[in-house]
Amino acid sequence: GAIAAEALAQANPNQLIANRKGAMNLQGKYLGPVLGMSLGRAPYDAKIVQRNVEYLTVLNQLPWDDFQPHTAGNPNTRAKEDVFKDPAKFKAGIESMQGEVQKLAAVVRGGGDQNAVKPAAQAVGRACNSCHESFATFEFRFRVE
Amino acid sequence: GAIAAEALAQANPNQLIANRKGAMNLQGKYLGPVLGMSLGRAPYDAKIVQRNVEYLTVLNQLPWDDFQPHTAGNPNTRAKEDVFKDPAKFKAGIESMQGEVQKLAAVVRGGGDQNAVKPAAQAVGRACNSCHESFATFEFRFRVE
Repeated sequence: GAIAAEALAQANPNQLIANRKGAMNLQGKYLGPVLGMSLGRAPYDAKIVQRNVEYLTVLNQLPWDDFQPHTAGNPNTRAKEDVFKDPAKFKAGIESMQGEVQKLAAVVRGGGDQNAVKPAAQAVGRACNSCHESFATFEFRFRVE
Repeated sequence: GAIAAEALAQANPNQLIANRKGAMNLQGKYLGPVLGMSLGRAPYDAKIVQRNVEYLTVLNQLPWDDFQPHTAGNPNTRAKEDVFKDPAKFKAGIESMQGEVQKLAAVVRGGGDQNAVKPAAQAVGRACNSCHESFATFEFRFRVE
């Protein structure tokens, strides 16, 4: 069987950027409805919240290894170079968001209702905002004040 | 707290396309090394295979609801319009791939070694190829013969 050499050449900067943008977009896809429903802007559907939050516990692991220094300055990225200038702060922001997602997942797995999910989902949103302010040239799509 | 109305407007065609491309790219990110390692093109690392296959069991659920008919003909997509002309065939292709990923996951969860993983990973790759041939204007990135 033939498999392209590309299989192992994961370091192409455009591919890395496409991968990490993909993981970012998907986090938005699944967090957006959780925020919207917990804030009462759409009918609350506990099954969708549960499914989406489980997806988020996986998706929030995926973007970070694709932020490699040789992607800095690439025209396809809207990440600031601060990602690579202050990797400790970037890592702290990631871990803060992952911690908030774990807390949200604990609420959902424990059978928490809309009133319990709302502040936990907002805390995830605020973690997204915070990191976007430091490390992206654009605001988080579902900005939470 | 303010949340953009966009939170619930998931039907923007460019956003749908970005989401589904993201899920496709991520499937490539995690299947590529499993194929490469099982085929002996990189040192076999059972922990990476295990992690990646678990990710794939989630990622292979994510792209499909974003293939909505109003995205047909959008300049940002390389999906053929056959996706929407023959949805039953598209669905069958998706389910075939998902079934092969479940078989691969069963092999990996059962402690299968490189020799056991190789044919199961190739079967996933062939399912990817097959659907790309029918429904995409470009070949699957890690083409398996």
